[in-house]
Amino acid sequence: MNNRIYFDNAATTSLDKEVLDAMMPYLTTHFGNPSSIYSYGRETRLAVENARKAVAKILNAHPAEIFFTSGGTESSNTAITAAVRDLGCKHMITSPIEHHATMHTTEHLHDTGEAKLSLVKLLPNGHVDLENLEELLASITEKTLVTLLHANNEIGNILDIHVVGEICKKYNAIFHCDTVQTVGHYPFNLKETPVHFITSAGHKFHGPKGVGILYINEDVKIKPFINGGSQERNMRAGTENVYGIVGFAKALQMATDNYEKESTYIQELKKYMYDQLIAEIPGVRFHGDVLGNSLYTVLNVGFPKSEKSDMLLFNLDINNICVSGGSACTSGANQGSHVIKAVYPAEDTDSVRFSFSKENTKEEIDIVVEKLKEII
Amino acid sequence: MNNRIYFDNAATTSLDKEVLDAMMPYLTTHFGNPSSIYSYGRETRLAVENARKAVAKILNAHPAEIFFTSGGTESSNTAITAAVRDLGCKHMITSPIEHHATMHTTEHLHDTGEAKLSLVKLLPNGHVDLENLEELLASITEKTLVTLLHANNEIGNILDIHVVGEICKKYNAIFHCDTVQTVGHYPFNLKETPVHFITSAGHKFHGPKGVGILYINEDVKIKPFINGGSQERNMRAGTENVYGIVGFAKALQMATDNYEKESTYIQELKKYMYDQLIAEIPGVRFHGDVLGNSLYTVLNVGFPKSEKSDMLLFNLDINNICVSGGSACTSGANQGSHVIKAVYPAEDTDSVRFSFSKENTKEEIDIVVEKLKEII
Repeated sequence: MNNRIYFDNAATTSLDKEVLDAMMPYLTTHFGNPSSIYSYGRETRLAVENARKAVAKILNAHPAEIFFTSGGTESSNTAITAAVRDLGCKHMITSPIEHHATMHTTEHLHDTGEAKLSLVKLLPNGHVDLENLEELLASITEKTLVTLLHANNEIGNILDIHVVGEICKKYNAIFHCDTVQTVGHYPFNLKETPVHFITSAGHKFHGPKGVGILYINEDVKIKPFINGGSQERNMRAGTENVYGIVGFAKALQMATDNYEKESTYIQELKKYMYDQLIAEIPGVRFHGDVLGNSLYTVLNVGFPKSEKSDMLLFNLDINNICVSGGSACTSGANQGSHVIKAVYPAEDTDSVRFSFSKENTKEEIDIVVEKLKEII
Repeated sequence: MNNRIYFDNAATTSLDKEVLDAMMPYLTTHFGNPSSIYSYGRETRLAVENARKAVAKILNAHPAEIFFTSGGTESSNTAITAAVRDLGCKHMITSPIEHHATMHTTEHLHDTGEAKLSLVKLLPNGHVDLENLEELLASITEKTLVTLLHANNEIGNILDIHVVGEICKKYNAIFHCDTVQTVGHYPFNLKETPVHFITSAGHKFHGPKGVGILYINEDVKIKPFINGGSQERNMRAGTENVYGIVGFAKALQMATDNYEKESTYIQELKKYMYDQLIAEIPGVRFHGDVLGNSLYTVLNVGFPKSEKSDMLLFNLDINNICVSGGSACTSGANQGSHVIKAVYPAEDTDSVRFSFSKENTKEEIDIVVEKLKEII
């Protein structure tokens, strides 16, 4: 890897060699269109349906509840739009620190006048204020969609999906949970989870880009977001991305098989970097519920402002260290993070998200902390 | 290929080995998120932008007019929905023999009451009746979207995109042309073509599945169909399918470089099969403008009904011959082709679409015609 240190795994992970191996037949000999009726298409149809079954089994869902999409953003667009247009939600509750896929979709539906939009309050550590969520739901008379991140992609805070699901149930609300940062990183048992929609993207857990899933609880019936052919049981039109789907399932299988070992290892990396930063960088702060209910993959750090801290990401890049200021989906814009601004409006630090995978090491952390000391 | 004869290239083509080779770095070492700001992301950003430039150059468009999507269906959904919701079209004109991506999207927008829907008449050979198109446009007072296939995916008829574009221009209509069967098979010069939207899918010309483009003429400004991050210049959110995009551009480059040779070769295959069928199968018919303005890749044949013809596709499959009754996107449903029904309502034949690629041979055609003689 040319001494490159890659600490931006929440943006995208590498594609695992074993996952690529599983995809290769469908990138070479097995190219048939799975919607064709002859044997050649049936081979790829079987691959798609086996992938669906494998994913459903891992999430403890029914295969008929799993739909393959082009990724997490399409999945969230589908769920949120369907909740409003097909399930009668006239009000949407979300938080100020959602991924842009949710933020901009809910804003769009608000702008078109299709649904009202309320933002739930946050606690000082960035967790969603569940009392306020319940107050909001109690005060709204229209059918409501609650759409919240399972784990915040920037600060790592984890929502209690079961508690929120029960609150939604109590108020007959539709619950969409953006689980893009948690599927492949935590166990799921959807049969026991009161949620209508969850989403996932393969490239967040060493699977391929360009493929994701939308879980639609069998109790809700929606219309397709992308209209056309009868693929995905008439729910998502377009020729299936067969190798992407096969890769998604393989990556999820591997992540599940190795969950105990990898999550423990990555959690140790996060704690190690936390300790090293406290020891080595005076004035360092941490964002979110850093040692509490938080992703083991993400460490969001506020560095004290200095002459050089402005150029922090740039200087890290020069030293071949890949980190981000926030979500990759917005980093091109370089406007600063809406998440940090919402949770820490008064804080004057330069925030950096370090996010880890099974491929990282403590030695890499030592190098990065050393460089940070030099730069700051 | 295990003696398998694959004559369903209009459903999907094989992925070219050279295309896969071009994709491989982005399936292995170059996995960075192109929206990241560090060098590792910039490598993939560069790959995406070089792909965009290459595609734009081939189509003689501006790079800013090319947007990568998950495929042809998403592209058509985006164009048609944007024409209605963002460009003020209150009326849609389409034909009864469109791909389901257009048919179901226009029907959906009609059902929601967002736009009226008119169907243009067809000539006896399945071509769009351009006089009727002009009559319709002249009679409609509202702003109108015209959405028509460049080449029909089932019978192969090719629309004169320039003539239709000029008609649309005359009536200030928006023109979306579904070019999924023609991009990669015919030269395009979009700077000289009066069209607002065209679409393409990589897997139709030996590129990857799960990736396509939408061309949006710089004169029209639309909102994204999929909301979220700022990818694709805020027009299509979601982490970019980098290897798909790289593969799309490579496949289009190869198709363009080899156009003269390959189109001549495939045209000869089509004519050869046409001649053989006439010579060997009494009562055989051909659908569409078969020897005229028609795809060189597609031959749609009507076989006289017989006791055995019911099971024609099945019997061909048993003999390892892959063909389809119509569009792959609908073949799962097995309801017969809406295209054949619309153009030949009175005809009592079993229709089969044979579609060819550079990988097919005359020897394969001989085998298929021999099998057809046996079966019928």
